[in-house]
Order: sequence, then structure tokens, then C-alpha cells
Amino acid sequence: MKIAMIEDNVLPFEDISPVYLDRGTFFGDGVYEVLRSYNGKIFAIEEHLRRFERSLSEIDIAGVDIGRIRRRIETAFKKADIADACIYFHITRGSAPRKHNWDDTIRPNFFLTVTELPDDKEAKEKGYAVSTFPDWRWKRCDIKSLNLLANVLARQDAAKKGCDEAILVDDNGLITEGAGSAFFAIMGEKLRTAPLTNRILPSVTRKFVIEAAETAGLKTSEKPMTPNEAMSADEMFIAVTTKDIVPVVKFDGNTIGNGRPGKLTKLLMLEFQKFTK
Amino acid sequence: MKIAMIEDNVLPFEDISPVYLDRGTFFGDGVYEVLRSYNGKIFAIEEHLRRFERSLSEIDIAGVDIGRIRRRIETAFKKADIADACIYFHITRGSAPRKHNWDDTIRPNFFLTVTELPDDKEAKEKGYAVSTFPDWRWKRCDIKSLNLLANVLARQDAAKKGCDEAILVDDNGLITEGAGSAFFAIMGEKLRTAPLTNRILPSVTRKFVIEAAETAGLKTSEKPMTPNEAMSADEMFIAVTTKDIVPVVKFDGNTIGNGRPGKLTKLLMLEFQKFTK
Repeated sequence: MKIAMIEDNVLPFEDISPVYLDRGTFFGDGVYEVLRSYNGKIFAIEEHLRRFERSLSEIDIAGVDIGRIRRRIETAFKKADIADACIYFHITRGSAPRKHNWDDTIRPNFFLTVTELPDDKEAKEKGYAVSTFPDWRWKRCDIKSLNLLANVLARQDAAKKGCDEAILVDDNGLITEGAGSAFFAIMGEKLRTAPLTNRILPSVTRKFVIEAAETAGLKTSEKPMTPNEAMSADEMFIAVTTKDIVPVVKFDGNTIGNGRPGKLTKLLMLEFQKFTK
Repeated sequence: MKIAMIEDNVLPFEDISPVYLDRGTFFGDGVYEVLRSYNGKIFAIEEHLRRFERSLSEIDIAGVDIGRIRRRIETAFKKADIADACIYFHITRGSAPRKHNWDDTIRPNFFLTVTELPDDKEAKEKGYAVSTFPDWRWKRCDIKSLNLLANVLARQDAAKKGCDEAILVDDNGLITEGAGSAFFAIMGEKLRTAPLTNRILPSVTRKFVIEAAETAGLKTSEKPMTPNEAMSADEMFIAVTTKDIVPVVKFDGNTIGNGRPGKLTKLLMLEFQKFTK
């Protein structure tokens, strides 16, 4: 008789809830998005939904109605009634007995949470310390998938070192991005960040940062850098949906600039705020 | 109010079952094993448990009693009473609100299934067709983790091409292994397979294949090969726990040898059977 076991409980295979057979757990076979609201308004929902649709398509999850996802997000957000909310959602390919291949009968699973964003005032005022970690991720980081173990291990390594984010470095010694953020340096009057390839997530926040830089009169150079180049930067910051821009003041133990958030970074933070109003 | 949404159902965050907060789903933050039994006897349980323990340790999942896992496997296998069974189990880091970092309060989740193995007689007699696919996996394939989306996409590509397994080719144009198997070629009197590095799973079946080869008087050369080199082989096969050795007779549409399972491959299959008795 086919059986399943959850902790110490043995039960007939047919009796287990489909959630235990989610391909999200077996294979990380799903994609996700994180959105935030500012003062009761969801930010950049179009951009996030467009990226989500692309992620679904790249891993061949079919039959998802994006209009319906948007309505679910709006319903949940309204119900939660949190002004500065973090909205997380994922879709997995669905539930089925474990087997790499899938067939057309499978139906996607949807899961979403709305939670309060932690206060980021101190992070923004003091700045983050970051540390480097090898970029162990797969080769399709342009897909926002649930395969995030490399990111998790990098972030935990950073935490052990007393740092707030891990900056990932590839086999060629070049920075790709943060474990959960885009990475930027300011060198003179130039904003520097890695170019978008399949090794990097097309970050929504990154796009707005580059727009903010343009308004502020900063040119952007999309060229990867080594940790040593980065450390010689005048200013440094990361960009992530939940906190937009957070200055970086320490990189692998080395002080960046004068050890306080840089003035151009602060200018970009102000410019970014305008998008969110 | 913090909320969760499952399909169209909105509910208070506190009311969702911890299974929906499994880090296995959020991050693929867990490791797994697949064992099989031959005629009522579990094969190579020591080897699998040893590898499992290493996987846990490499991703810092602490507090798992391997003796207890073994007892669970034995209990479930006995209860299922299937002579030729496939035993799958995974441990994830545990359930918690989504956040990359974890803390010491988290408790691992265990899940196991015992199912019947599909009949592999035809596969073994006729041989498999395989096709190549880029190796998109992460850089720590020596860890048997739940981050398997690259494997899933490769296997599905193979299925679309009417093939039974995908053979993964890295950025240097070298074969690493199959999407769910080890890969071997026989060239003259030599068995050829990629060496064990962090880009390859230390396959238990691979180890027994190499032992079988030794008994059969075949030398093993652990050196990676290109698809072109592989195609010039006299014989070819894959090795996987659930089916041990399966001959390969077609590689990217090209016939290997005379298009039938090779004689040395068949000899290795016989030698392998001796281990399982």
C-alpha cells in the first residue's frame, strides 16, 4: 500500500493533503513576487505583474490569468488594511505525486501574504554593512523562481558576520547583485551597476533607481565590477522593493566614503520617494 | 491585520497551517534522498543516510537525529509492504514567516512517501533515448537539495523531444550528469564518467557501478567528456537509484553502437544485480 509519513505519522498516500505534494516544495517549481505599498498605495504593480508573467512563461506555467492575480492582490491588500505593507505571492506548478515531468492536467497553486513592513528608518539613516559571498545561484536568475537556497545561505553567512546583506561574486570575480537586492556604487558622478543578463534579476527597484539617477543628473554605467573596484567607490547602496534604497557604509569590513550614507545616495532616496507618492 | 490568501480564500495570517510557511516552498530550503528496495530489502541505506547527513550539514540544518530518520524509513517501508518500493523523503529547515535568515528556534519538517516502482523492464531491454540540455543548476550540486527547477526544465525538454532523460552540458561544453541520473560511456575497455566535484551529485548508484566495473575487469576513467566524444562511445548508459543501470541507445538523435543495449553494459547490469541480493 502506498503510504506517506509526516513527522512520525504514517497515513495512506491518498489521505495526504495536496499541499504536501506541492511541486514548490519538491522542486522549487514556482515563481514569486514581492510588492510593497507606501501609505496605502501599492507601488509599481504593473511592473511586478509584467515580470511575474514573464517568469511564469519562462518556466512554462500556463493558464494563469494575470488579471485575476491582480484582483487577488487588491482584495487581500484591502482586507489587510496596512498602510505600509509587504505583499508576497507565489504560484507553483501545482500538486502531484513527485515526478520531474509534468502534464497538462496539473493546476497551479496560489499563495499570498500581506504583512507589515518592519521599520527601516535606522537602516536608512545609519546604512548597511555588507559582506561578499560566492554566487552559487543557478544560471537563470532572470527568472524570479523559488530556487533560493543559494540566496539563503549567502544571507545567513552575512548575518553571521554581523552584516545586513550578502553581495554575490561570480566565478570571474565580478559582483552580480545582492542576495535579495540590486547593488550600486557611485564613482564620481557616475552610478555603476551590473548589466541585466540571465545571471541577474531584472529588479523593478533598479529600474526606478536608474530613472531617479537620470533626474538627479547622474549617468549610469551598466558594467560589472570587482569587490576591489566597488570598495574604491565614493558611495554605495542596495535597492530592494521592501526598502527601496538603503545606503551601504561598510563592505567586507572596509568603510565606504566617510562611513555615513553618501550625499548623492541621499539625493537618490529623495528622488525615489517622488515615485512612491 | 496580517493576512494570508490561498487561491481565493482570505484568512488571518495566524490561522494558516504551518505547512504553507514551509521554507521548503519559499526557498527550496531542504534536502532529500530517494532509496529503493529490491524484493523486500532496502538497498544501500547506509550510503544514502551518510549522504543525507552530509547534505544537512552543508546547508546547516542542525538537530536531525539520523538514527530516528532510519527508524522512520524502516517503519514506513514495513507498513507499506511493497517489495520493489521507491522511498522518497525530505527534510526542510522548517516553517516560519518568510525571511531569508533563520534562527535557532526553527524545527525541521520531515516528509516521506513509499510508492511502487514503475516497471523498468522495457527501458532496460530497449534502452533509453537521451538529449542534451544546458546545465543551469546551481554550483553546489554535491548537495542533494530541493532546488531542482533546472533539472525539471531539462527533463521536460527531453520529454518534448521524445527522450527519457536530459544530459546536462556545462558552460565549457562538458557533460556533468543527467537531470536525474549519473552518465556513463564505455569506450573500448574503459568506463568513462565525469569526476566528482561540487557540480555533480555524489551518486550512490555511480559508486556501485564503478565497483561492478572493477569486478568485470573494466577500468574507470573519471574525466569529463563533450557530447561529441560521448557520441563516439561504443556503449552508453545512465545510473539512477530507482532503476540502477539503464542502457542508452540514442543520444541527441544519434544511434549509439548498434542501437541496442551494449554487451558490457549488460554485463554491468548483471554485476550490479549481485549487490542487490
